[in-house]
Amino acid sequence: MTYHAIEWCPGADGKPVVRMIDQRLIPEQLKTLDYIDFEAVAAAIRDMVIRGAPAIGLAAGYGLALAAVRGPDDPGCLRETLAQAAATLRAARPTAVNLGWALDRMLARLSDPALATADALRSAAVTEAQAIDAENLQMDLDIARNAFPLIPDNANIYHHCNTGPLATGGYGTALGVICYAHEQGKQVHVFVDETRPRLQGARLTAWELQQMGIPFTVVPDGASGHIMRTQKIDLCIVGCDRVAANGDVANKIGTYNLALAASAHGVPFYSAGPSSTVDLATPTGGDIPIEMRPPEEITHISGVRITPEGASVANPAFDVTPAARLAAIITERGVAYPPFTESLARLMGGK
Amino acid sequence: MTYHAIEWCPGADGKPVVRMIDQRLIPEQLKTLDYIDFEAVAAAIRDMVIRGAPAIGLAAGYGLALAAVRGPDDPGCLRETLAQAAATLRAARPTAVNLGWALDRMLARLSDPALATADALRSAAVTEAQAIDAENLQMDLDIARNAFPLIPDNANIYHHCNTGPLATGGYGTALGVICYAHEQGKQVHVFVDETRPRLQGARLTAWELQQMGIPFTVVPDGASGHIMRTQKIDLCIVGCDRVAANGDVANKIGTYNLALAASAHGVPFYSAGPSSTVDLATPTGGDIPIEMRPPEEITHISGVRITPEGASVANPAFDVTPAARLAAIITERGVAYPPFTESLARLMGGK
Repeated sequence: MTYHAIEWCPGADGKPVVRMIDQRLIPEQLKTLDYIDFEAVAAAIRDMVIRGAPAIGLAAGYGLALAAVRGPDDPGCLRETLAQAAATLRAARPTAVNLGWALDRMLARLSDPALATADALRSAAVTEAQAIDAENLQMDLDIARNAFPLIPDNANIYHHCNTGPLATGGYGTALGVICYAHEQGKQVHVFVDETRPRLQGARLTAWELQQMGIPFTVVPDGASGHIMRTQKIDLCIVGCDRVAANGDVANKIGTYNLALAASAHGVPFYSAGPSSTVDLATPTGGDIPIEMRPPEEITHISGVRITPEGASVANPAFDVTPAARLAAIITERGVAYPPFTESLARLMGGK
Repeated sequence: MTYHAIEWCPGADGKPVVRMIDQRLIPEQLKTLDYIDFEAVAAAIRDMVIRGAPAIGLAAGYGLALAAVRGPDDPGCLRETLAQAAATLRAARPTAVNLGWALDRMLARLSDPALATADALRSAAVTEAQAIDAENLQMDLDIARNAFPLIPDNANIYHHCNTGPLATGGYGTALGVICYAHEQGKQVHVFVDETRPRLQGARLTAWELQQMGIPFTVVPDGASGHIMRTQKIDLCIVGCDRVAANGDVANKIGTYNLALAASAHGVPFYSAGPSSTVDLATPTGGDIPIEMRPPEEITHISGVRITPEGASVANPAFDVTPAARLAAIITERGVAYPPFTESLARLMGGK
């Protein structure tokens, strides 16, 4: 990869910083920002400098490492700072599951009473954040390798939203699958759903595919049925925000419509993501609450008003694709095929 | 109606002008422009001051009337001017079927050798353009009345693109059906597909529904599956650009995806339009050529770049919804039900 959504690296003063690509500027500009305190990292998460659930988890982990490295020398005071930093980071985007998960993991490690000095705490915090980073990357690679046999050569692939290195801070999930196939020498072309309202496909996925040298075509979300009717599409692959025990998949709004088009044209539809998104405690997609996002994402584009003043809009962030529309769910643990109730339980058995 | 996409009315100098709403400014501004020569009318069609196939036909008719009224007094010279005006207007948007149809009708009337004076030619041109206008409005009203029994009270209706008075210059087709049901006292609420790339739903349909006092909710095109999964939708109704002999319907890109969502959730899907869009010479939707529009409609929104520089995009203007997904096709001549090959032939029999 030639770019990193987030990195732990030395800053201008030689001390470590958290360096992030400002994703709000992609594709116009590739600009990185260096963060030296946890409050600014929390603000970056809140303001969507970084987005994508796994990438947000990484940012929280590194944010806490920053609090440790730059915090007071007294271990008691440092522990207090860390607790405060974790609370601030957690509040940045309260609905992001990975954010809480990464912070809990960091705090569990740092609660070890054997970490008696500030240096010991600092070292443990940095090591743990880097471990999350490394495991995250490995997970993405395992997803890509598990999916590899499902991608034919000369594949015409349909993709929705953004699931690349920008979204995971690693190798990407669905886009990682595509990238891996490309790197292994398979010819691929990607149809990129632009993904209204936030246009993550048109802005981020198109940019990432350019970086990877993979040919692609951006299309409005409403065009997938037409494209599938008039061209040979080999498969669709998307990410997942939550997978229910029965295989229903919650993902970015528009995923279900793409799955319906795929289904009408016999195109296999895959969802790829870390096994942490498989939630066996959620029986079906009907049990997944759907976040409603601010109306401004619909009423305005790049600050320009689209709808009339006073127009009522609905902005559901996710939809649920019923298990029956999915050919497989791909995780780092392996590939689950229908019937998903059995295959997912088996896959998650060792959890 | 409180507004007219296009009107023939006295201008500031007392002489007739063609007055059009500048639809490029909706919903930000409701501004009308007065045209006093046919070349400016042709430019208005080309620059999309006015759009929508029937409205373009009206503009062409009135543009030719303008050439007659404002043209030279010598009948021979005037006939020459009219021929030139027709050619200029015809070239404004060469793919719009109604434009050519309206011009051919005007020219046929004006070719009458009995029209021996400039005044006779002028009077005939204005009368013919006004006849097209009146028939157009009547056709829209007949469509609305024919569809009326299909709209239940308290209907939750899904709509795509723009099919209102702005698009037809009359009462509207699919949106006219909704408006008529509302005027007759039925409670309706409309889900408005925003309709990327040109956002005719978010911009124009939302504005028209506001003018009509009909409650509505604008949603991204990708949300229809989710909305139908989570809410009771009674029907979808859209316009049509061309209907094949077998009932396949070509309409604005995104229509087919909406039909697939409707089909998955048992929601009846209707297409409404004048019988002139039924083309029995086109056997199936596969025989309908799909216009590809400029990439800038995808890469930019309101002049702001969305996709990365150099990104490849596809911008099909229309898609084809297979007859099997349609519950009925509504025209001013009546309602055609499946099997459409028989019902459309019967409906068009008297043509």
